[in-house]
Amino acid sequence: MTIRFGKVAVIGTGALGGSVAAALRARGLAASVCGHDPVNAQAALDAGLIDSIAPGLSQAIEGADLVVLAAPVAVNIALLSEYSNWASLDSQALVTDVSSTKSSVVASALAGMGAVRSRFVASHPIAGADRAGPGASRANLFEGAAVIVCPTDDSDADACERNHALWSAMGARVAIMSAQHHDRLFAEVSHWPHAVAFALSAAIGNGPLADDARRFYGAGLRDTTRVGGSPADLWAGILLDNRGPTLAAAAAFRQSLDRIEKAIADGDRDALVAALSEGERWRTSL
Amino acid sequence: MTIRFGKVAVIGTGALGGSVAAALRARGLAASVCGHDPVNAQAALDAGLIDSIAPGLSQAIEGADLVVLAAPVAVNIALLSEYSNWASLDSQALVTDVSSTKSSVVASALAGMGAVRSRFVASHPIAGADRAGPGASRANLFEGAAVIVCPTDDSDADACERNHALWSAMGARVAIMSAQHHDRLFAEVSHWPHAVAFALSAAIGNGPLADDARRFYGAGLRDTTRVGGSPADLWAGILLDNRGPTLAAAAAFRQSLDRIEKAIADGDRDALVAALSEGERWRTSL
Repeated sequence: MTIRFGKVAVIGTGALGGSVAAALRARGLAASVCGHDPVNAQAALDAGLIDSIAPGLSQAIEGADLVVLAAPVAVNIALLSEYSNWASLDSQALVTDVSSTKSSVVASALAGMGAVRSRFVASHPIAGADRAGPGASRANLFEGAAVIVCPTDDSDADACERNHALWSAMGARVAIMSAQHHDRLFAEVSHWPHAVAFALSAAIGNGPLADDARRFYGAGLRDTTRVGGSPADLWAGILLDNRGPTLAAAAAFRQSLDRIEKAIADGDRDALVAALSEGERWRTSL
Repeated sequence: MTIRFGKVAVIGTGALGGSVAAALRARGLAASVCGHDPVNAQAALDAGLIDSIAPGLSQAIEGADLVVLAAPVAVNIALLSEYSNWASLDSQALVTDVSSTKSSVVASALAGMGAVRSRFVASHPIAGADRAGPGASRANLFEGAAVIVCPTDDSDADACERNHALWSAMGARVAIMSAQHHDRLFAEVSHWPHAVAFALSAAIGNGPLADDARRFYGAGLRDTTRVGGSPADLWAGILLDNRGPTLAAAAAFRQSLDRIEKAIADGDRDALVAALSEGERWRTSL
């Protein structure tokens, strides 16, 4: 299925929303792309990512046949829950999002969108920009990336097909799972590992050897802590929004970590090799 | 100071020892390089990393003017402490090592080498091969890398100069610090982060979502866990050898992690942003 949209509204034109806009334009998938973002819209327009700025959500979605929510997750949730005029949405339009968490997004769409909730299908592209802001946008960000799609109980088949076609047309491969499964999985493979990387960075930065560490760290620390340089504000929102699964992932991590630390403290080489080997085995299977 | 060695003995011809051998030969820094390694020597010879195989330590160091200990740290320590014939070492020879920990290596050299202990200077090149074994050796591994050098109280000036010239000639930049400072620093920036990466990998691999995680992990997890695929056996030795500083780094990490986890559990956004920001600030300063 090839797809082409008329007016597209991108709500939140930071690195990810800007990349959606850029990809749509680069591939000729939209007649026009308007952006709404109280902070980043002008920079996105200046960078040629969007064609026009919408001053508010009403103007953005008016006449749009694709609405992409790409603000921080708490903002996306607020828009889905609290916008009073979702009824004005074109009944054939598709609404999707790019948030890193899905259960609360889906719940907000079901609760807040009224009759047009059937046109909402949640999406999570597994592709991160290195930095924040529209300047970090890349038209090819989704090429070869996985996009997890979580239909709601009320998503209609046409909206699901259009959403699938949207991401496929941008070069991504689509996988479908429930929002609950998504959130458990991404707590393990993304959200909690981010918390760990922040903690590793903070512990070194707060310690007496912070300056030496900056001079002498190697590739191991560079990679292990890389996502610890992500925007704290954004990640606070994600971690809080996915609190339950993240705390479950934390508990599983602490079990493995406790075992390693105890073996070190006990000087128990066999136990330590066994505990480390579990990690080595999974990691080398990637 | 330019430098050229006659016979060089590389004890342990895995990825790191093999890279030392390859770098010496590629840059014409040695007349000959012999290797001793009960497991890897033949593969190192076949790969052209060394010129000959020495069946034992005695044959390896006989007539050598450079001896590089590149076995796992526990083996290097055993050789320094327990080899009964260090007195046969040429009195002008330099002995160094490439272990990731330094205090116990230095102590073993001082205790075990007798009169020739003045010819030992400890080294730690901050450069890791991606895989284990001589096949992962690279002649350019040390180009642009830092090498931490830890003279002992008894290292003589000539040995220090020759060791400095050795690493400089392979393209590395040398920094000098005490073995104790080195071990505290590398517990923070390398040893404990390895333990964390092993634990992250193990927790996911032991969980019910291990297969999904393998399909859908992104760049964040790939980087955060990369060193969790390191050889468990080798890293057990490093973590145990540097036990005290590693446990201290673990305690500092747990403070930062506890703060983040508590803020998530409490739903305290301000506290969470503050805790994550400490990590973001240090990491983005790199």
